[in-house]
Amino acid sequence: MTVTVVGSIAYDRVKTPFGERERMLGGAATHFALAASFFDSVRAVGPVGDDFDDFETLSLRGTSIDDVERVPGGKTFFWHGEYGWDLNTRETLDTQLGVFETFEPKLSDASKAAEVLFLANIQPDVQRAVREQSAAGFVAMDSMNLWIDIARDSLVQTIAGVDCVILNDAELRQLTNKPNLILAAREVLTMGPSVVVAKQGEYGAALITDDEFFSLPAYPLESVVDPTGAGDTFAGGFVGYLAKNPGQYRMAMAYGTALASFNVEEFGTERVARLTLEEVEARVSTLGAITRL
Amino acid sequence: MTVTVVGSIAYDRVKTPFGERERMLGGAATHFALAASFFDSVRAVGPVGDDFDDFETLSLRGTSIDDVERVPGGKTFFWHGEYGWDLNTRETLDTQLGVFETFEPKLSDASKAAEVLFLANIQPDVQRAVREQSAAGFVAMDSMNLWIDIARDSLVQTIAGVDCVILNDAELRQLTNKPNLILAAREVLTMGPSVVVAKQGEYGAALITDDEFFSLPAYPLESVVDPTGAGDTFAGGFVGYLAKNPGQYRMAMAYGTALASFNVEEFGTERVARLTLEEVEARVSTLGAITRL
Repeated sequence: MTVTVVGSIAYDRVKTPFGERERMLGGAATHFALAASFFDSVRAVGPVGDDFDDFETLSLRGTSIDDVERVPGGKTFFWHGEYGWDLNTRETLDTQLGVFETFEPKLSDASKAAEVLFLANIQPDVQRAVREQSAAGFVAMDSMNLWIDIARDSLVQTIAGVDCVILNDAELRQLTNKPNLILAAREVLTMGPSVVVAKQGEYGAALITDDEFFSLPAYPLESVVDPTGAGDTFAGGFVGYLAKNPGQYRMAMAYGTALASFNVEEFGTERVARLTLEEVEARVSTLGAITRL
Repeated sequence: MTVTVVGSIAYDRVKTPFGERERMLGGAATHFALAASFFDSVRAVGPVGDDFDDFETLSLRGTSIDDVERVPGGKTFFWHGEYGWDLNTRETLDTQLGVFETFEPKLSDASKAAEVLFLANIQPDVQRAVREQSAAGFVAMDSMNLWIDIARDSLVQTIAGVDCVILNDAELRQLTNKPNLILAAREVLTMGPSVVVAKQGEYGAALITDDEFFSLPAYPLESVVDPTGAGDTFAGGFVGYLAKNPGQYRMAMAYGTALASFNVEEFGTERVARLTLEEVEARVSTLGAITRL
């Protein structure tokens, strides 16, 4: 199967207690593609400016960049943030939308035809416009607190048109105004999707469907350097594995979790860019061992 | 085997988004005993005042209250707190130490002879005084951020004399000044204990030894009414199960988790007081099912 991902391709300036990077490749579509490309063909869709010069990393493991729109005179999306002592809090110091400000995604026939679609975190109207162009049989999406705050109605409409929602647990609570995570997830299921994944940061993730609950801790790491992109790497592993193994939700959670664990061990895409499937599989196996009752 | 628990026996005034209680039975030793008594003989040690009239609940399932010290003219420890919207934050509005202010635990011969000892959260000097009276072969302990702040040296001395430390993950980080949980737990292992349990609230708990890591999510609940005593109920289930099944750490984590899940479904001790072992075992079985990769 083929997976189309639509979202940001970015440069990040990041400072964590363990170092900093002035300009590193980032963006939701980038992290997603680097993870999903372990399992199936990936097509990345998103805009970049003249300043973008990381096509090689973006197209690793065969990801198609045919639909990456080069905007003449434009500047690539830029995010600048700093993480706190225990990496659980982060402050955004600067966001420059650049070419993303006027982004109107136009999917090529090949991207429209992909069997699986991932709508990374972008304005929910834009996500819906993409969804309407796509012929995918399985559509997953992410979002963020900003859209719950300023575009909740549009977001709920977008959610109604997808199969799987992947959000942080705090976002699920905020979206539904329900403090209980299970009730919040169940309410999202009533909006349309059949699968809800609650990302819980360093604590792992939970998967909720109408008749299943599954919980998986994060992979235990002694060194976490930079959490940027962990959620999108998780989503890439989860959705990519599902594209190849439909319905295998639990193993998809394990692959997403294992991939995210590598992502945070170095800055940006540095670790996942040189990762092997064998390394991922070893951590999936360990996840099985450390959760076995 | 017999488990001796030394800690607070209290009255709590609690308000949560789901209701309130003016005066309910609480305290670490109480919650611990109600859970541990499912597995083995428990001896509760702690002071109460003239106002205490809940001996019947405290001695449920055979817990010995012979060493519960009635202080004439004294007032039972009192805590007043209020929980926030999602129950993850709580504010202490009042603490009256009462008879606890001058508590000098004197263990009877029977309590000294217990094979297992649990030092609930009290001043670390007092914990050590108890530990020195005890002949137990397995000693576990809890503590809190207050003692890390004002009595860290004493706390570290106490930790050096026990086999198992059960703390919140934030407390492990604070104690060791290490933001990474695995490194924090490993540092606590170097202080003396052979087992560290990191309680993670609604996310579950992790167990770390020199050669094992195990993680278990909390039991998924659609209704949480009052988290008071959840940590002590977990500890009671964990230590109580271990007393009967030495070395069976993973199942002990599951029993502690299952017991804590019942505790939070109603106020104070209300649910655990009328709980059956069959109900606990059903949730342990469910925990196995929802974590199986």
